Amino acid sequence: VVARGRDAAPGAGATALIAIDWGTTAARAYRLDAQGAIIAERSELLGVQKVEARRFPAALSVLLDGAMPAEAPIIACGMIGSRQGWVEAPYVECPARFDVFAGALARVPEAALAIVPGLICRDADGVPDVMRGEETQILGALEEEAGRQCVVLPGTHSKWALVDDAAVSDFASFMTGELYAMLREHSILGRLAGAGDEAVAFERGVRLSLRAGRALTHDLFSARTLALTGELAPTGVADYLSGLLIGAEAVAARDWIERHASRDRAITLVGEAMLCQRYRRALAIAGVPSRIGPPDSAARGMWRIARHAGLVK
Amino acid sequence: VVARGRDAAPGAGATALIAIDWGTTAARAYRLDAQGAIIAERSELLGVQKVEARRFPAALSVLLDGAMPAEAPIIACGMIGSRQGWVEAPYVECPARFDVFAGALARVPEAALAIVPGLICRDADGVPDVMRGEETQILGALEEEAGRQCVVLPGTHSKWALVDDAAVSDFASFMTGELYAMLREHSILGRLAGAGDEAVAFERGVRLSLRAGRALTHDLFSARTLALTGELAPTGVADYLSGLLIGAEAVAARDWIERHASRDRAITLVGEAMLCQRYRRALAIAGVPSRIGPPDSAARGMWRIARHAGLVK
Repeated sequence: VVARGRDAAPGAGATALIAIDWGTTAARAYRLDAQGAIIAERSELLGVQKVEARRFPAALSVLLDGAMPAEAPIIACGMIGSRQGWVEAPYVECPARFDVFAGALARVPEAALAIVPGLICRDADGVPDVMRGEETQILGALEEEAGRQCVVLPGTHSKWALVDDAAVSDFASFMTGELYAMLREHSILGRLAGAGDEAVAFERGVRLSLRAGRALTHDLFSARTLALTGELAPTGVADYLSGLLIGAEAVAARDWIERHASRDRAITLVGEAMLCQRYRRALAIAGVPSRIGPPDSAARGMWRIARHAGLVK
Repeated sequence: VVARGRDAAPGAGATALIAIDWGTTAARAYRLDAQGAIIAERSELLGVQKVEARRFPAALSVLLDGAMPAEAPIIACGMIGSRQGWVEAPYVECPARFDVFAGALARVPEAALAIVPGLICRDADGVPDVMRGEETQILGALEEEAGRQCVVLPGTHSKWALVDDAAVSDFASFMTGELYAMLREHSILGRLAGAGDEAVAFERGVRLSLRAGRALTHDLFSARTLALTGELAPTGVADYLSGLLIGAEAVAARDWIERHASRDRAITLVGEAMLCQRYRRALAIAGVPSRIGPPDSAARGMWRIARHAGLVK
C-alpha cells in the first residue's frame, strides 16, 4: 500500500472530481478541486490483476477512503476499461479529439463511474496498434490544446504519439522496456552485467544504434563481445544495453515522426523522472530536442476529458 | 546420455582421427577413417559447463569409450577452447584460412589433444564479433575450397559468414534464437501464445519485417495488438514472432552481404534441419536463394583443419 496525502491549499474548495488512474497493478485516485488542482491522492496495489473475483466496488471504496457514494463525479482511465476490467470501454480510432473521448466514456451505473476508452490506430501496412491509459496522459501533457506536437511516454511499452489540435492523430508502441528487463533477467547478456550506473556506456550504446545500417539483434550481441574483449566493463553492460535499445527506439521513432510531420517543436516526455532523463539524453544525441512534461498528466487528462463530457464545469 | 553408433562400412579402415565437437552443454566425438568418413560417433552431456571441477581428462575418457591413450590423434573445437574450457585457444583474426587455424591449434599435452581456436572480426564501426566452434562448421560446410560464398548457421546466436577461397573473411552474429526463447518464455507476448504450428503466421511475420522502414521493437508489439483485435489466432502468435525475428535477421544480413559482395551464389544453411527449413523459407520470401549444407559439418571441418595441421595425411 502506497498512500500520499497533500495538504489542501489554503482556500482550496471541495472535491469537484475524483479521477482514478487504474492500471494493471496499481490504482491511484486523485481528488481535484473546481480549478482542476490536485487536493489529495491515494495509491493502492488494487490494479485490475490484483482485484480478486472482480470485486471492483470494494476496491473503489478503498480508493475513496470508504466514502461511497462519492461526493463528486468519478472518472477513471487505464486497464479498468479493458476486457479484464470492470466495464469494457471499446477502443476509439485515431484521430481522436477530447470530445471523442468524452462522447465514448463507458459508464458503470452502480458506481456512477465513467471510464475513458483506449485508442487504436493502423499504420500504412494495416498493422494495428493500441494504448489504454496512455491516451489520457498524452492529452494531460499538452501545454495548450492547439498545434502539432509529439508526446513520448517511455516505459515497458513506450508510446510515441502525434497530437494535432488536441487530437491524437497517430501513435506507435515500442517494446523497449520489456526487452530491456528480459535481457537483464533472462539472457546471457544479463549474466555478464555487474552493478553499475555508467553514463558513458549508455551513450556508447545510443551512439551505436544511431549509426546508419545497424541492426539491433546484431548489436545486442556486441554487449557480450565487448565484455569478452575487455572493451566494456561488467558495470557498464546494463547501461550499454539500455543505450542500444533506447537508441534503436529513437532512430525508428524519429523516422516515423519525419514521415508524418516536420519537427519544429520539442518532444514532450512524460513518465518516471529517471527514465525521462535517459530518453532526453538519447534524443539529444540524436539531435532531437525534448522537454519534460508536467507531472500527474493522467489526472490532468481526466480533468480535461471530464470537462468536455460535462462531468465538471 | 545420447549415444549413436554407426555400422562400420565394409572395408572401412581403422580410426585415423578422433574429432570432438565440444560445446557448452554437450560433447560429440567422431571417429573418422583415413578418407575422413565417419565410422562412429558418441554424444554425451559432457559440455564445458557440465564437467565438474574441470575433470576434463575423465570426460574425454568417457567420450573415447574408456580408451586412453587414444589410438589416433584427437582434435576438438568449441567452448573446450574458451577461458572456461580445458586450455584456452585464443581467437584468431579474420580473414582466417584453414592454414591459420591449423597453425594456431592449442595443445593439451596430457591428452595429445589439439583445440581449434575461435574467430574474431571487427566491423566498420570497430565493434568486435566472435565465434567459437562455428568457424569449424563453416569450413566443414564448404563444397570446395575456392570462390566466394556465404554460410549461415541459424541458432541461439545465428552466424552469417563470408568465405573467400576457404578463408572466413568476415561474419556477423544475430541474437535471434535467444530473443525468440525469451519472448516465448518471459514476455507478455509469450503468454498470449497457444500451441500451434502455423506456416501462414510465420510468413506474415517475415513479410512484415521485410517491408521498408519497419522497426523490430515496434513490430514485436503487433503480435499483441493483432491477437487483441482477433486478426492473429493464439495458435499463430509464436510462429508470427519467429517470422518477425528471422525476417529482421534476413533483412539486416542481406544488407550486410550486399555491402560486402555481390550474391551470385546460394547461401549455405548449416544446422538443425527444421530451423534451416524455416530460414530457407524466410530467405526465399526475401528473394535470397539458399541451400541446405552437409550434415556433420563440425566433423568435416575438423578433418580439413587436421589435414592442414599434418595430424592426418
